[in-house]
Amino acid sequence: MTAGHPAAVGEGRLDRWLEQLASFNADAASGGVTREVYGPEYRAACGYVAGLMEEAGLDVREDSFGNLYGSWEGSDPDASRVLTGSHFDTTLNAGKYDGSLGVLGAIDAVSRLRAANLAPRRGIDVVAFAGEEPRFGLGCIGSRAAVGELTREDLDRLCDRNGVSLASALRGAGLDPDRLAEAELEAGRHGAFVELHIEQGATLETAGVAVGVVTHIAAPHDVRVTLCGAAMHAGATPMRLRHDALAGAAEAMVELERLAATSASGTTVATVGVLRARPGAINVIPGEVEMDVDVRDSDEAVRTQVVEDFLAETAAIAARRGLALAHELIARHAPAACDPPIVDAARRACADLGIEYLELASGAYHDAMVLSSRMPMGMIFVPSAGGISHSPLEYTDPGDMSRGVAVLARALAHLAA
Amino acid sequence: MTAGHPAAVGEGRLDRWLEQLASFNADAASGGVTREVYGPEYRAACGYVAGLMEEAGLDVREDSFGNLYGSWEGSDPDASRVLTGSHFDTTLNAGKYDGSLGVLGAIDAVSRLRAANLAPRRGIDVVAFAGEEPRFGLGCIGSRAAVGELTREDLDRLCDRNGVSLASALRGAGLDPDRLAEAELEAGRHGAFVELHIEQGATLETAGVAVGVVTHIAAPHDVRVTLCGAAMHAGATPMRLRHDALAGAAEAMVELERLAATSASGTTVATVGVLRARPGAINVIPGEVEMDVDVRDSDEAVRTQVVEDFLAETAAIAARRGLALAHELIARHAPAACDPPIVDAARRACADLGIEYLELASGAYHDAMVLSSRMPMGMIFVPSAGGISHSPLEYTDPGDMSRGVAVLARALAHLAA
Repeated sequence: MTAGHPAAVGEGRLDRWLEQLASFNADAASGGVTREVYGPEYRAACGYVAGLMEEAGLDVREDSFGNLYGSWEGSDPDASRVLTGSHFDTTLNAGKYDGSLGVLGAIDAVSRLRAANLAPRRGIDVVAFAGEEPRFGLGCIGSRAAVGELTREDLDRLCDRNGVSLASALRGAGLDPDRLAEAELEAGRHGAFVELHIEQGATLETAGVAVGVVTHIAAPHDVRVTLCGAAMHAGATPMRLRHDALAGAAEAMVELERLAATSASGTTVATVGVLRARPGAINVIPGEVEMDVDVRDSDEAVRTQVVEDFLAETAAIAARRGLALAHELIARHAPAACDPPIVDAARRACADLGIEYLELASGAYHDAMVLSSRMPMGMIFVPSAGGISHSPLEYTDPGDMSRGVAVLARALAHLAA
Repeated sequence: MTAGHPAAVGEGRLDRWLEQLASFNADAASGGVTREVYGPEYRAACGYVAGLMEEAGLDVREDSFGNLYGSWEGSDPDASRVLTGSHFDTTLNAGKYDGSLGVLGAIDAVSRLRAANLAPRRGIDVVAFAGEEPRFGLGCIGSRAAVGELTREDLDRLCDRNGVSLASALRGAGLDPDRLAEAELEAGRHGAFVELHIEQGATLETAGVAVGVVTHIAAPHDVRVTLCGAAMHAGATPMRLRHDALAGAAEAMVELERLAATSASGTTVATVGVLRARPGAINVIPGEVEMDVDVRDSDEAVRTQVVEDFLAETAAIAARRGLALAHELIARHAPAACDPPIVDAARRACADLGIEYLELASGAYHDAMVLSSRMPMGMIFVPSAGGISHSPLEYTDPGDMSRGVAVLARALAHLAA
């Protein structure tokens, strides 16, 4: 960052804001940040973020779902507007950067543009979406409300781990679940959404590049697979007479990894994040294993093929071993392609600033994926140290964050021109 | 069983005894039998079993550890004696046959011999060992006390899942832990131990044979293996940048199964009965996996080779995947060979009675394995339906039990002659 560049105006400001936002924390003793949407710490943080928006000269409003908007009018009130932002709720015992960088970075970017006396043709809105993390089992509820994807029934049906419904949590935060429809964004009002986010993976760090221009957002296809065999004595049952559900699951997991690593797209990832082996005694052969399988790709056809091949291979393994196989769908979301003009605006921003960038797909999903059903979208990534996220160890270098904000500001300027 | 045969005297008696013994149950609501050693139901059952021994004309005594003996004097008081029996404590929510058959079957066998007016040269002792199941973490404590394997310190150190020490449980049962040494059997007093037991596997059932003559008792070599990788985002981390501890564990489990199934002895079994994958969320790559690995064989050298090969293969897998590997020994017991003259007595008993038998190794360990350090031993198996044990579904056909008792009685007659 050279002196005299607009970004220099607020040098160090973003780091201070991130520290301050991290202090709105329901479980500081854990060592990380816990700030679930609609909780008291989240509501207090809304006041803090709204204050930053106001200081940046934005008109602040909260919609009926708790999404927070800060607006900067453009010279052409009839032109479609540019939206930028992310979320600042967290998972349990999380880091300071996931989502928060996209909200505070957007405020910082707009401040930089105003300090540089930019007069945009299109209006620019900064948004903090309520509830990207899945407190109520479903991710991205704030952006889903904004694109009209949630129904009033969903608000009663979706509950958190303590059985609190989304409707009840909204009421507790002073919001009215019956006014859900008011949170929907007017069709055509926004012509672009740009989200700055930490990568949450190690691709940028491994490549030694500070900025990622996202071309696609992968989405998960999640399946719960259950294998049932016979919980027999681990000593008394010869190998050839076993129906070991965990041995079958092991073979299936090896296949899953092979299928993902050799998929036609080259971008598939597959994970068994949850495995339960029952009864779970050292002297008993596992009679039942449950695996939660997560397959993601930005190429939906390839992703479907991997899931289908995995289930077929697992069925063959189960048949050979005399195991019963059952599977059920947990979730299946459509991947999204970033809008070529927005990708191009980000590329041009990097080129303008002389910042090296890498084009990559986002393996994690984001509010931008949900918004893609309503407006063109794009994303800008900065590196995550060690690829670590959803952890107190989450870290992004301040210099990288500053470069990311500078690219966002420049891209917004291009898009709003 | 032909009419007039000694066994016909008590036809149906054993089934009634097993039913009656099963009624001493601390958790009848579970559907199974729960009778842990030294608990109130166990102590009440001791009274019932002692009564059966007395009815069978045996002199009953309980040793300082709670092992119950019923003695029948032989014509030669200087000859070494024959010991037979098993245990009647159970695991949680268990079946009616494991151990109990060996105690009640021994009483039944002796009753048959007395009814047939056998006058043995050697004395015959029926024993019910206290605590074969590992209430205090260690199996076979009754027989270990009988062979002098336990120390006074062990009684304070070994605790059950509620933190009750073995010493304290002994006191609660009216026994004196400081008199442990009195439970040790006099060296040379017994020349043979024969244990009748359910197979707890499906080898006899699969072969369609009612009686098994055991040639070896396999023993476990148990290792806890921990693989540590990186708990990264399941979506954002490309396959080639992962250190997935569960994917590594899956590969290691496939290797373990292959090593056991192709071992030099052909009798090795290997099981991962316990697997913990952390943190255990569908969208997080498992960063740590703990596996409890149980390897058994009656051939100790082969067993050691399988464990060593498994650890070497797992180390190679871990190195290739960038995982940290740690392992610790859980338990390592020596397998035991049955005494050829006792095996031969069981074979001759089958031949005398025209009962088909199969020679096999015991995959599970038993009190007989512990006793082998003090006296020659052998075992007789009867089939377990479906190979199921440690379960309310445990079942052995009454006809098979009767054949097993007849073989035991005949073998005792041969050994006591």
